[in-house]
Amino acid sequence: MTEDITPVEEGSVTTPRGFQAAGVACGIKARGEKDLSLICSERAGRVVGLFTENRLPAAPVLLSRGHAARGVGRAVVINSGNANACTGPAGMANATEMVNRVASGIGCPPEEVFVCSTGRIGIPLPMAKVRRGIDEAIEQLSPQGGDDAALGILTTDTYPKKMGLRVSLGEQELFLGGIAKGAGMIDPHLATMLCVITTDGDVSEEALAAAARRAVADSFNRISIDGDCSTNDTVLLFANGLARNPTLTLESGDFRLFQSALSLLMGRLARMIVEDGEGISKVVEILVQGAADDRDAERVARAVAHSLLVKCSWHGEDPNWGRLLAAIGYSGAAVDGERVDIFYNGVQAVAGGARRSRTPAGLLLEVVRLPQFTILIDLGIGSGHFRLLTTDLTERYVRINKGE
Amino acid sequence: MTEDITPVEEGSVTTPRGFQAAGVACGIKARGEKDLSLICSERAGRVVGLFTENRLPAAPVLLSRGHAARGVGRAVVINSGNANACTGPAGMANATEMVNRVASGIGCPPEEVFVCSTGRIGIPLPMAKVRRGIDEAIEQLSPQGGDDAALGILTTDTYPKKMGLRVSLGEQELFLGGIAKGAGMIDPHLATMLCVITTDGDVSEEALAAAARRAVADSFNRISIDGDCSTNDTVLLFANGLARNPTLTLESGDFRLFQSALSLLMGRLARMIVEDGEGISKVVEILVQGAADDRDAERVARAVAHSLLVKCSWHGEDPNWGRLLAAIGYSGAAVDGERVDIFYNGVQAVAGGARRSRTPAGLLLEVVRLPQFTILIDLGIGSGHFRLLTTDLTERYVRINKGE
Repeated sequence: MTEDITPVEEGSVTTPRGFQAAGVACGIKARGEKDLSLICSERAGRVVGLFTENRLPAAPVLLSRGHAARGVGRAVVINSGNANACTGPAGMANATEMVNRVASGIGCPPEEVFVCSTGRIGIPLPMAKVRRGIDEAIEQLSPQGGDDAALGILTTDTYPKKMGLRVSLGEQELFLGGIAKGAGMIDPHLATMLCVITTDGDVSEEALAAAARRAVADSFNRISIDGDCSTNDTVLLFANGLARNPTLTLESGDFRLFQSALSLLMGRLARMIVEDGEGISKVVEILVQGAADDRDAERVARAVAHSLLVKCSWHGEDPNWGRLLAAIGYSGAAVDGERVDIFYNGVQAVAGGARRSRTPAGLLLEVVRLPQFTILIDLGIGSGHFRLLTTDLTERYVRINKGE
Repeated sequence: MTEDITPVEEGSVTTPRGFQAAGVACGIKARGEKDLSLICSERAGRVVGLFTENRLPAAPVLLSRGHAARGVGRAVVINSGNANACTGPAGMANATEMVNRVASGIGCPPEEVFVCSTGRIGIPLPMAKVRRGIDEAIEQLSPQGGDDAALGILTTDTYPKKMGLRVSLGEQELFLGGIAKGAGMIDPHLATMLCVITTDGDVSEEALAAAARRAVADSFNRISIDGDCSTNDTVLLFANGLARNPTLTLESGDFRLFQSALSLLMGRLARMIVEDGEGISKVVEILVQGAADDRDAERVARAVAHSLLVKCSWHGEDPNWGRLLAAIGYSGAAVDGERVDIFYNGVQAVAGGARRSRTPAGLLLEVVRLPQFTILIDLGIGSGHFRLLTTDLTERYVRINKGE
């Protein structure tokens, strides 16, 4: 973090000026936890939305994507416990009703309201409960509501993910805040999570979109838990301009600072999602370098991160680099077996595609016993590189996902 | 099975005329199980080899691939417990020594001897033991040795996989036999297993290669346990011609019968591999139809078969078709959410992309409680289709693969 970007204590989506939020329990979840959140700006601002690449997107994704194309918004309503996915025409009608109810409650056009749902797929939303929840959330909207909102979006997460940042622009300052949820089904290409970012910065449409794309590419698209990509993944970025800074454009000197802050915020939220992955016991960062190109480096990182055998060996604290090599070999990337080097937290396990015999086995064991470690794979043939944060695979993951 | 193709009781690689085999315990495996097998024809014949697509193939794969290119062979030596993969130049020297030792022992050129290894990656072969094992195996070669050979190639398999078939060609008959090993790391594109097929049929080079490719495409390339593809996968087909039938060519009327028998044999061995997958509790056949083309159908089948969330729900006996839809959506295949139908053993769960409300939930539960069931996914947009045999994911799988 630079001097100009500082964390805000207890920061959340209500850290930036003009944002209110609420999180209520309306009974979608069986056990009385919070299951509906509302985040609302006192005035309409710019909105950027990035959505799942899944070709069977849920109704709320279809609806919000349409609204995001207009680029203007004031609020988002999010329910957990039910994904409203694969629910046919009734699902779209329900998503639309949610948006309309929020819009008339806060007094804005429906097109300025966004909707997200997360939870079990294929079950109709219990609309009587949802309606009550929306009315209650509107009632409870407050500048202190960020923490409640962070709770209302969780599914199998074990703790809320939230953060706020202060960005100093000379005399002026602007704020960013964010909440996210993750847990199961985390993977590439906007992978299975919800994230809402707010900022009071005044940022041009073009600059806001570019910053969001870049930040997502460097954060949420660099994490993987189980390789599944959900029907509901959504990142929404609201910028209401209340900081009254000179509008940031791609050419502004301060744009890079805004970009850094947004990337930092999303990066931290993404890491929290991985660290709270379902039933995990290890967080592993995979760095690939020396690939023919970045695309190949990504192939290698994802093949390793998705290999069940590799993930199980991490759980067993077994420095089984043989399984890494097997995954590298079938990744589809160009490789030369005699040039691959592998390091665990800097300790070299593999030199030129075979065991580095001078490395004591005990050193590697020490690394894989840590709760977090980094594996560097150097293919030794080019300058392509990629970084991915992933986890092990545990009996507990299987147990959690056996039923739902 | 047609009338012309009948199983041979206790059939194995020594069922066809002129083949001998042996399986010995030479100490590569710690617990004294058999770990080295030799299969040998009394005369050289045609050989077809199909090998892993992994780009870091093990030394024995590189060596055998070179020999297979010549198309002639007499014997194959296989050790289990050590994959001789990622072992550098020493690994190739050891594989070569194995081949040379067998060749001089049985009296043939080294180029007619093949070698396979399976087991842990990255550890040098214990050559003193391997040498002793080869000498002992040559000593013990016998026409009754097929069962021992089937045992010597196993790793985490819980039972040997073997089969023999008799093919009646009018007045004449020919035999086929096969052994295989599988367990962990089973997946696409010649995926992580070893298989040796023998036949006394006289088959032209071209016809033998075509039959082998077709049979592998319909069997071993249609199974998936964990999505990993090993450094060592090998299928070898030896045809010594001792049945003295008129040489079968692609134009022979009897070629289709030979193809059927070979496909049947590999299909049964492949199914045995899946049924004996590490720690599995369910075998699930995925049939995809109605895809834009066969390639898309394969994408859908593999996405479903590789989804950890789907596999866990099978283990939990949860008919969670929502997770199937999510996997279909991210498979990359062209899909229309309103046209997808899903059936469990013929019971329709999903109609037009949403729950078929008239299907009682109890009926679906009955299906997923069976040890084996079939899921039919009809995308409803074209005529592409694909079939894949896969398994669930269990706590036991994770436990087995934590250490090695």
